Amino acid sequence: MTDTPIAARIRASFDSQTMMQTLGGVFEHAEPGLVRLSAEVRPDLRQQQGVAHGGLVFTLADSAAGYAALSVMPENREVMTVEMKINMLAPGTGRLIAEGRVVRAGRRLVVVAADVWCGPDDTRRHVATLQGTMIPVDAQ
Amino acid sequence: MTDTPIAARIRASFDSQTMMQTLGGVFEHAEPGLVRLSAEVRPDLRQQQGVAHGGLVFTLADSAAGYAALSVMPENREVMTVEMKINMLAPGTGRLIAEGRVVRAGRRLVVVAADVWCGPDDTRRHVATLQGTMIPVDAQ
Amino acid sequence: MTDTPIAARIRASFDSQTMMQTLGGVFEHAEPGLVRLSAEVRPDLRQQQGVAHGGLVFTLADSAAGYAALSVMPENREVMTVEMKINMLAPGTGRLIAEGRVVRAGRRLVVVAADVWCGPDDTRRHVATLQGTMIPVDAQ
Amino acid sequence: MTDTPIAARIRASFDSQTMMQTLGGVFEHAEPGLVRLSAEVRPDLRQQQGVAHGGLVFTLADSAAGYAALSVMPENREVMTVEMKINMLAPGTGRLIAEGRVVRAGRRLVVVAADVWCGPDDTRRHVATLQGTMIPVDAQ
Repeated sequence: MTDTPIAARIRASFDSQTMMQTLGGVFEHAEPGLVRLSAEVRPDLRQQQGVAHGGLVFTLADSAAGYAALSVMPENREVMTVEMKINMLAPGTGRLIAEGRVVRAGRRLVVVAADVWCGPDDTRRHVATLQGTMIPVDAQ
Repeated sequence: MTDTPIAARIRASFDSQTMMQTLGGVFEHAEPGLVRLSAEVRPDLRQQQGVAHGGLVFTLADSAAGYAALSVMPENREVMTVEMKINMLAPGTGRLIAEGRVVRAGRRLVVVAADVWCGPDDTRRHVATLQGTMIPVDAQ
Repeated sequence: MTDTPIAARIRASFDSQTMMQTLGGVFEHAEPGLVRLSAEVRPDLRQQQGVAHGGLVFTLADSAAGYAALSVMPENREVMTVEMKINMLAPGTGRLIAEGRVVRAGRRLVVVAADVWCGPDDTRRHVATLQGTMIPVDAQ
Repeated sequence: MTDTPIAARIRASFDSQTMMQTLGGVFEHAEPGLVRLSAEVRPDLRQQQGVAHGGLVFTLADSAAGYAALSVMPENREVMTVEMKINMLAPGTGRLIAEGRVVRAGRRLVVVAADVWCGPDDTRRHVATLQGTMIPVDAQ
């Protein structure tokens, strides 16, 4: 399947984030104002109790939220995280799905939200919920 | 130099977090209520503009804050992140230093803060500041 | 109309918060996991530009979120705010409606969210969005 | 004592916030990057347990943080709250003192922090700690 222009733009940025490759992040889906990423909770990405490290959960969700903001930016603009707040809800195991979305796209700031899930669709577990702010900057 | 009992406890937990090894995190210092970690912004831990990925900054700071809370826990208790809020202040390059500290250790929750710096001591740059909540749980 | 037991419980607590009376808060609706409050942006509740003071927006939303948590508590428990994070989205004018809801009710903590709106239903403006944590305590 | 130019500017803005008068807020002190406000926990500003309503604590602290940001703005700029995060630490009684300070003043955003205390200086209690973001806007 061919990427939409929005998906192609996000995939290009995603592929240039070396951290995402290090963590095994996968770009799953993009539409205007909504982006999904995923990552397996590999054995080398865990905390001391054997579940997903909070840093993995945050990284995936912050990126999904940032790409959701990027999906509504003009071509000459990209975004950076101003601030992000995460509430951890349950341990993450198996494969994590992070969904980011735009809450309000202002001229100067974009307010975003994200949620992280794990497990099969019909019994998925809510791992974390996030709320934050992105700022548009000139694209490089 | 031999670790103090507090440092030894934190080092043992730190060494069991595979994510920290994947990111090249180093345990630097612990005293009651204060912990310092560091990590180099390796080429494989960057975002699309070539500086430290926000996920790396968060992971190091959240861990430093969590270990600061652990440093005031009795032997049979450890801590988990309830929630954490990060403000990104400047790009992180070179080597990151994260310092976590206890703001208030209550019976049911521990409020923590953390800051991340980079660069030489006399000209160090403030990369991020965090505020959050840890919850004590039975040690495994 | 007679209050449901949940609404009656929340109304009793609401009426005992003197701050709510000072701000002219009105209890509008409660069902398990969801509570709505409202308040007029009276002339004496404004900031220097003449719109709703952020403190009014926060107070109404924090209370709605807290009551949403209370709505799922057993009779012998009430809740206190551990932490709350607000993103301001647009100026609040006229009458504010705050809707609080439970994101996840755990045994030890309840994660909540809230949104504040103003204006007529069909053209309402999103004034603020919040995410936070409540802790159950013994009811007095 | 005559106000410094910074204090005079903040006092003028403070006096134009009707909400502050409604809550009995007092402007105490301003220097570049640091502002202190206070308020008595009057009987009409309490929650159901008889201590300071969280909304009062937030309002005072958010304002102190905002004025700290204003204290470093040029004459033709003022600030608005983008987002604010509060951790409640202990019940507020008697008289509340809120101290706001600038963490980092950037060109496009100002990161701020605030703390709220109550009780006599030598035994004061830490009521709340906050971290947030202000945005400069044209002064009216």
